Amino acid sequence: MKALKQRIMQDGKCLEGGILKVDSFINHQMDPALMMEMAKELAERFNGIAIDKVITVEASGIAPAIMVAYLLNVPVVFAKKKVPSTMEGILKSEVFSFTKSRSYTICLSDKFLRKGERCLFIDDFLANGNAAAGILDLTGQAGAEIVGMGFLIEKGFQKGGSMLRSKGIKVESLAIIESLDNCEIRIKD
Amino acid sequence: MKALKQRIMQDGKCLEGGILKVDSFINHQMDPALMMEMAKELAERFNGIAIDKVITVEASGIAPAIMVAYLLNVPVVFAKKKVPSTMEGILKSEVFSFTKSRSYTICLSDKFLRKGERCLFIDDFLANGNAAAGILDLTGQAGAEIVGMGFLIEKGFQKGGSMLRSKGIKVESLAIIESLDNCEIRIKD
Repeated sequence: MKALKQRIMQDGKCLEGGILKVDSFINHQMDPALMMEMAKELAERFNGIAIDKVITVEASGIAPAIMVAYLLNVPVVFAKKKVPSTMEGILKSEVFSFTKSRSYTICLSDKFLRKGERCLFIDDFLANGNAAAGILDLTGQAGAEIVGMGFLIEKGFQKGGSMLRSKGIKVESLAIIESLDNCEIRIKD
Repeated sequence: MKALKQRIMQDGKCLEGGILKVDSFINHQMDPALMMEMAKELAERFNGIAIDKVITVEASGIAPAIMVAYLLNVPVVFAKKKVPSTMEGILKSEVFSFTKSRSYTICLSDKFLRKGERCLFIDDFLANGNAAAGILDLTGQAGAEIVGMGFLIEKGFQKGGSMLRSKGIKVESLAIIESLDNCEIRIKD
């Protein structure tokens, strides 16, 4: 998606260790007009697929997910990273974050993920695919189905994309980063 | 706001200890069409006030905040509850959560909250006003200004609303809960 790629080249920053910082427009400060354009593009790419629900993980998945769900006119549920004291029927999965070098638990109430529901997973980043794998685990526990996964930015040099596509999942990413070597951002055309 | 009040009466649940559970449409599963209607109503209530930025706190503030910011055509920044390793120029404030009986730190990069910026704070709930007070602290540290605060649901029987209004802040809430006594939800007309 051209507008996103241009914005990454203009405002993205590459830090040591293969970190792409997009906190001025995606995951700390957010540009809502760009977010809506990205949501439209994702909704378009999953056009024609029956979708009952959008699913995401807090916190930075929520903004793109609510907009995609708004456009698709379906509910959206976000997995939480802390188990709320008032949650019933908890589905849990363990996720390892390479960026943060630690594991965390994601959880969802089984009231909001039902057997047979066709879910579209939306998140800001796809890197090693650990959050996505956690969501596959949760939907599997519930007997729900992931019919697609949409990401704003995919780190093409990490293994998440190939791992998910090799499972036959339709994965769409609006910008695929080819390399962050030497702190230079290279995006796939 | 009529649609929200009806939805609370229909789908909200009251738990022991004055907890109003709206996790089927506001803060776990979300109804995006209702969220957009609520955002439109909030944007309308702050119409005519110059606003540079929307500010919120992760995670359940993000959905209403991104939609209000989209309608107002301004950026939105969300305060984080964990300090990211890559954050620079960190502004911090301590917030006590009565619901969770513990304190947590909210933080923002000073890159995204500048001196003189006129900010609208948006959040899902106003109860004791502790998150709001934390945001006032952060904006104060940055030399920015809070020109209004908008909430989906206010617990009118807790002190946040009067505390904020007594400071002269324009506070708008789309539904004000008068009482949850005896696990019965009573909403102000």
